[in-house]
Amino acid sequence: MSEPTSPIARLIAPRHVAVIGASGDPAKTAGKPIAYLQKHNYQGAIYPVNPRGDTIAGLKSYADVASLPLAPDVAIVLVGPERAAQAVRELAALGTPAAIVLASGYAEIGPEGAQRQRELKEAAGAMRLLGPNAIGLVNLTDKIMLSASGALEMADLPAGNIAVVSQSGGILGSLLSRASGRGVGFSKLVSTGNEADLDVADFVDHLADDPATAVIALYVEGLRSPARFRAAAQKAARAGKPIVVFKVGRSESGERAAVSHTGALAGADRMYDTFFAQLGVTRVLKFEDLLDVPIALAQGRKLAGRRVAILTSTGGAGTLVADACGLEGFETPPPDAATAKELARLQNSEFAASDRNPVDLTLAGLKPDLFRGMVGALLASESYDALIVIAGSSALGQPDLVADAVTANLAGSSKPVLVYMSPHAPHLIARLNRRGIPAFAAPESCGAALAALWRQSPAAPATQAAAALVSVPATVTAVLETARGGALDEAQAKQVFSAYGIAAVREIATRTPAQAGEAAHRIGGRVVLKALSSRIMHKSEVGGVQVNLAPGEVPLAGEQILAAVAKASGITPDGLLVQEMQGGGVELILGFHRDPQLGPSILLGMGGVTAELLKDTAVRLLPVTRDDAQAMVRELKTFPLLDGYRGKPPCDIEAVVEAILSFAAMARSLGERLREAEINPLFVLPRGQGVRAADGLLLLAQ
Amino acid sequence: MSEPTSPIARLIAPRHVAVIGASGDPAKTAGKPIAYLQKHNYQGAIYPVNPRGDTIAGLKSYADVASLPLAPDVAIVLVGPERAAQAVRELAALGTPAAIVLASGYAEIGPEGAQRQRELKEAAGAMRLLGPNAIGLVNLTDKIMLSASGALEMADLPAGNIAVVSQSGGILGSLLSRASGRGVGFSKLVSTGNEADLDVADFVDHLADDPATAVIALYVEGLRSPARFRAAAQKAARAGKPIVVFKVGRSESGERAAVSHTGALAGADRMYDTFFAQLGVTRVLKFEDLLDVPIALAQGRKLAGRRVAILTSTGGAGTLVADACGLEGFETPPPDAATAKELARLQNSEFAASDRNPVDLTLAGLKPDLFRGMVGALLASESYDALIVIAGSSALGQPDLVADAVTANLAGSSKPVLVYMSPHAPHLIARLNRRGIPAFAAPESCGAALAALWRQSPAAPATQAAAALVSVPATVTAVLETARGGALDEAQAKQVFSAYGIAAVREIATRTPAQAGEAAHRIGGRVVLKALSSRIMHKSEVGGVQVNLAPGEVPLAGEQILAAVAKASGITPDGLLVQEMQGGGVELILGFHRDPQLGPSILLGMGGVTAELLKDTAVRLLPVTRDDAQAMVRELKTFPLLDGYRGKPPCDIEAVVEAILSFAAMARSLGERLREAEINPLFVLPRGQGVRAADGLLLLAQ
Repeated sequence: MSEPTSPIARLIAPRHVAVIGASGDPAKTAGKPIAYLQKHNYQGAIYPVNPRGDTIAGLKSYADVASLPLAPDVAIVLVGPERAAQAVRELAALGTPAAIVLASGYAEIGPEGAQRQRELKEAAGAMRLLGPNAIGLVNLTDKIMLSASGALEMADLPAGNIAVVSQSGGILGSLLSRASGRGVGFSKLVSTGNEADLDVADFVDHLADDPATAVIALYVEGLRSPARFRAAAQKAARAGKPIVVFKVGRSESGERAAVSHTGALAGADRMYDTFFAQLGVTRVLKFEDLLDVPIALAQGRKLAGRRVAILTSTGGAGTLVADACGLEGFETPPPDAATAKELARLQNSEFAASDRNPVDLTLAGLKPDLFRGMVGALLASESYDALIVIAGSSALGQPDLVADAVTANLAGSSKPVLVYMSPHAPHLIARLNRRGIPAFAAPESCGAALAALWRQSPAAPATQAAAALVSVPATVTAVLETARGGALDEAQAKQVFSAYGIAAVREIATRTPAQAGEAAHRIGGRVVLKALSSRIMHKSEVGGVQVNLAPGEVPLAGEQILAAVAKASGITPDGLLVQEMQGGGVELILGFHRDPQLGPSILLGMGGVTAELLKDTAVRLLPVTRDDAQAMVRELKTFPLLDGYRGKPPCDIEAVVEAILSFAAMARSLGERLREAEINPLFVLPRGQGVRAADGLLLLAQ
Repeated sequence: MSEPTSPIARLIAPRHVAVIGASGDPAKTAGKPIAYLQKHNYQGAIYPVNPRGDTIAGLKSYADVASLPLAPDVAIVLVGPERAAQAVRELAALGTPAAIVLASGYAEIGPEGAQRQRELKEAAGAMRLLGPNAIGLVNLTDKIMLSASGALEMADLPAGNIAVVSQSGGILGSLLSRASGRGVGFSKLVSTGNEADLDVADFVDHLADDPATAVIALYVEGLRSPARFRAAAQKAARAGKPIVVFKVGRSESGERAAVSHTGALAGADRMYDTFFAQLGVTRVLKFEDLLDVPIALAQGRKLAGRRVAILTSTGGAGTLVADACGLEGFETPPPDAATAKELARLQNSEFAASDRNPVDLTLAGLKPDLFRGMVGALLASESYDALIVIAGSSALGQPDLVADAVTANLAGSSKPVLVYMSPHAPHLIARLNRRGIPAFAAPESCGAALAALWRQSPAAPATQAAAALVSVPATVTAVLETARGGALDEAQAKQVFSAYGIAAVREIATRTPAQAGEAAHRIGGRVVLKALSSRIMHKSEVGGVQVNLAPGEVPLAGEQILAAVAKASGITPDGLLVQEMQGGGVELILGFHRDPQLGPSILLGMGGVTAELLKDTAVRLLPVTRDDAQAMVRELKTFPLLDGYRGKPPCDIEAVVEAILSFAAMARSLGERLREAEINPLFVLPRGQGVRAADGLLLLAQ
């Protein structure tokens, strides 16, 4: 145990623990923390605090916090919410670096509890708090249990290199118990509860430095500080430690339950997909994968490609696993000639089809030498980047056949090896995992594990280079000053976009129908005429737009527009906007939005009503890199429309990328002042001709 | 055991079993069937056949099939492929109703094996065959094991009301073992292997009549006879027996593995979704759900709505389950006032939030009386249609708390009750299942189970009324006679569609540019001009289409088209087609295709390149009912475009439904002669004005 320095380090590996409100009865919740500390042979000092009784669980007990002989590294506060704040205040006064508050009755029960939680936080002052409404933390590396979780009743709590941070104590217990059942150990488990102070991000930051931790698994209901999480995740990425997250709230029912469970804040769940993806964090969608995927990653092997060999003694399961891998984008190609020859030589059997994958061993093939040879041949093969071995019901009678064969070959290869257990055999799964061979009961877990390995395999995503801050151009400052009620009119919005590098269609803002007519003649050709006003969001719905006008038709059309808008909306437009008719090109939507939880984002979408109904969009949270922008364009399902579809000239895709980056630069430079912005449609012209904003809106914070 | 009558009934419940190639060594595969029969106290007669030895496993052994004292109800053929055909021929000659061939080395190994399989089938003559490459069958209702599966080593093989039919023997063993691990019993398990004769459909048909079977679970790699499967599935539906299927082959890797595993035929996997959905068969996508969903259905309770109550002692798991249910479209509304009052009264606790769902009991709330009361209150509540109870780690110490509380309330309610086990506790899951309470280890299984229950809840889908066969109209017969090389030209195709009730745009087929000009004048207004030829599939790609022509422009345009087509394709068009320009309306695609496995289908899709790239389509296999047609239109994600989008007039949706039914009627009446047909675009006009086929193709079988 290294000398703890930071409060979190002391919290995780304390030299002494005070237990406030301790009971001598291990059957009671208040008796469990000391019981678990003692059961797992905690080597530090334990100070029970309880006004009743001199001795608790064989330890000298203190009547109150003030009587403690020193400031403990950590205090577990077991008293109820009505007395917790006082205990926390006294601990802070004593100089205790961190306290864990287990009680519930705080933000998760509503406004009254939220107030109580604020008081608790105030009482803690500079002392760090874990909880409230938390089950504590478990340091398996050092065998220090600071928790009342019933899961600690288990005799078998192996240490391992996977850390878990969970916003739910119950889920922490569930994971601990499930991992134990499959022979998997953890380094640290932390339940952060309501996160009055310390939150998931704090522990990710700490675990990134923890030598005992190789993979970080998170159960999240909502992130309180996306910015700090981002920094912590980037630190973990630099340390080469993958993060796997299961986040609830994908459905409305789940989101509501999450909010009421720990008082978590609701954000748009789909934005979390983007958030995690941009950070290189693997989001799993099945709860079981929150264990299975870290197990696979903890093996520490890298995937160099997507070609998977499957070795099986039970054909159906081979098909099942091949399908699960295929659904995640992996291939199961047949062996190359040299490998096939080697497989045939090893098997020496009339009916062995050595030119296939899954490689199907007959029951007769389950001899240790042969099996070891087959594993070796497939791992050595140039045809494959990973191996999945399937254990059939024969494994029940030969429990070490697979593990022995794999172990014998692991040193000679750096490829990942996974095992799928076809029969119900949790004990064999545990046996394999204990030997460091990731083993799963679900075929889908093999696919999910490979997908996560593949995501980790390229160099971990470098910290995104902060784009240079673009200062606000003078023209923009001038335009923004004219904004009334936060909104700019269409012409002003496009002036701003143009100042950041996104050209508009050719247009002239005018005051009167007569001026509009003159402007139309100057533009030449047919034009679009629009009412100009910062107070009208949807011009066409109030008769504020006419298209395909000859210049001579413009004055009359202008009169009609002014009358129609006044009649429909009661608003007198400030003037009329005359625009060239933009023909051809592909229509996109480019938007800037602010997620209440995760912050500013850029959205790119295919234009037109069909695409809108089908929601063909790509989104990234800021900061957006050039790579992100490139990927966004290609992420559109209708990207082919931009790329020279059916003989049409390819569109100016680079200009779209630049437009995305311009929008991002605008968002950075305007900062909090920018509330919402959208260009719809953004016309993409043929290659070399750029893009043109044909309509736009821009809202500022008031 | 009722008197068996059909060969399949004898196969499943034989009065006597011959084992060809039996060995006295239970360690060998050839020794296992007799060992398992004896181990599970088979009450019928067993006749080992083996040229060596008088006694096998204590039974009189026969030197050959001819020496058997009678024709056994079933023979298990254990000899290798080189001798199996002879044994099968002799058994058939003896009058044996059915034989099981376990050996592999048949269609699954390639053409040579496929030939061997044909010979085996010929040798069987009228005798029914199960296999080859099968693991046999297990009748747990009557404790008759006709299999060499190592899974039968298990001591605990409870009988239950779920039947399994699997095309893979290994998967059968896996399911048997997994079900046993979770305390779930089966009625019958059948491995159909390569299905040289008896296939999945035969057993579904039989099991629909089996009083011991309530739910049928299927593992499928590919259906050999969709028509017979359809009939069997409809029979099961009439009998009120849900079918749950896991079909591999969703990915290319899986499909290839399936084909090479049992020589299954490949079909378009996505068509199977439609096929199963039209039959009311539940397709599960996770392997685990092939057990979990039948377990839930086997409880026999119906879901009247989509509102789910969740009772939990561990908040995080409540959130997890609420999310899983929400993702399947279920709601978890808070309790109504009366229920909330009752929950509060029962709990009588300061911190119990009785106005929420999940209903979160504190640990203190885990008293049997209280828990039973809470379960009762939630089941009685008008707010809920189902209840999910979550067992937390406290269940480890109170293993019967949940089961007792649920059991005490089941009689008073007809609502489904499921249990989610949060900690790793397979023994508790088994304990619950044994008491008839569906219990799951994965939160996602709760969602999948509810979804399957919901699908079953309306009256089982009645057998689709066979649409009246439309005789081929005389005009169609006349047109078809002119078809050259199977293809009709566009005008002919539309004549056929029109004869079945789908109007075309106004058009006139002409021979020469001059005639085309006259026709254009007759039509009036602007027209479309197209080359007319049954040999050109994509007219616009060879310069064969000009649009928006004034009648005076038509003769010249006609000359240009004829020249362009001749130059680009070398084909001289038969003439020119003059069409009115169809303005407005929404463009759809209506198609008829033939899946190589599943047969004829109708496809409806939104037109336009964007929708095409986004694949906005709905598909149904024939027969298509009016309900199907209605559903197809509404299944389009861009259905709003047809339904009065943004102030536009609603389209003639009923005419689209009629067009789908017309296409289906055409397909029925033309039968095998129809190879492919498509209308693209089909213009849908405003309500009351119908649809118009603007282009079409029709291919006939040669």
